[in-house]
Amino acid sequence: MPLSMYQACVPVFIRGLTVLAALLEKGAAHAAAAGADPAGLIDARLAPDMYPLSGQVQRASDTSKFAVQRLSQVEAPKFADEETTFEQLQQRIAATIEYLRGVSADKLEGAESRKITLAFGDFRQEFQGDDYLLTFALPNFYFHVTTAYGILRQAGVQIGKLDFLGPYPQS
Amino acid sequence: MPLSMYQACVPVFIRGLTVLAALLEKGAAHAAAAGADPAGLIDARLAPDMYPLSGQVQRASDTSKFAVQRLSQVEAPKFADEETTFEQLQQRIAATIEYLRGVSADKLEGAESRKITLAFGDFRQEFQGDDYLLTFALPNFYFHVTTAYGILRQAGVQIGKLDFLGPYPQS
Repeated sequence: MPLSMYQACVPVFIRGLTVLAALLEKGAAHAAAAGADPAGLIDARLAPDMYPLSGQVQRASDTSKFAVQRLSQVEAPKFADEETTFEQLQQRIAATIEYLRGVSADKLEGAESRKITLAFGDFRQEFQGDDYLLTFALPNFYFHVTTAYGILRQAGVQIGKLDFLGPYPQS
Repeated sequence: MPLSMYQACVPVFIRGLTVLAALLEKGAAHAAAAGADPAGLIDARLAPDMYPLSGQVQRASDTSKFAVQRLSQVEAPKFADEETTFEQLQQRIAATIEYLRGVSADKLEGAESRKITLAFGDFRQEFQGDDYLLTFALPNFYFHVTTAYGILRQAGVQIGKLDFLGPYPQS
């Protein structure tokens, strides 16, 4: 059986957000061990005009919940983008995962052919559901998880590639 | 119709590598405009124990070609990881895309249930083909493309999110 839209989407985002939560835990522990203000790490960024760590987490949350909302038509919760502590970022991730867990596979049946229109600033694009997932939502999601990882790693947090990939079930 | 393994894999990697090639072009142009030695940018990294830009490109190439080789059983070309110039990195990407283009969709039929075993150092994991693609190959691929983007952006190359997402067909 080929891939279902659900399989390529909901559990993939839950997995990525779970990884992100674990990375942030290591970030918080790193700041605590160094006696540093965690706000410094939460505000760290790779370039002056890129989002800081908090923004990367907010965008990973948005990318996943909006993708699933657009594909499933199940309304996602709204968040105010006001997180400034590790605890609040963890709550944001947990609330996003809770929404994703509540979307059942049948809600994504036929989502591959759903028409999706995006418009942000100058960017306007119509997609078919499958192209939207594969060429917009997934790369965008991984962009933000990876950039969060890069910010933490650059700040000296002891994380490695296996932390990014996350645990796998024992086979 | 749900997603095929081919669709979630070969064109996705080709698209990501095409984006990476365009990012590197902007990197090379940036170094040239600044009168800087391009080697400085090619050796730049986000953390001392992470791969430099060249290594990110090599790993994006490997992740995509090995994934398709494992899933399709079509042997991929071997590369020596000796690229030290933008031109050589572009050749590496082009050769990877050429291999991917040569793998036809029928070679990936049934790949979702193929058993795939990975073993690198302490990491050993058995996957079913679909889980391998969704939880290992795709995140790993995007990790390297995004990290290359982060290195370039941190170095001051004028790129933005739309450069990472890449062009979409007009609808």
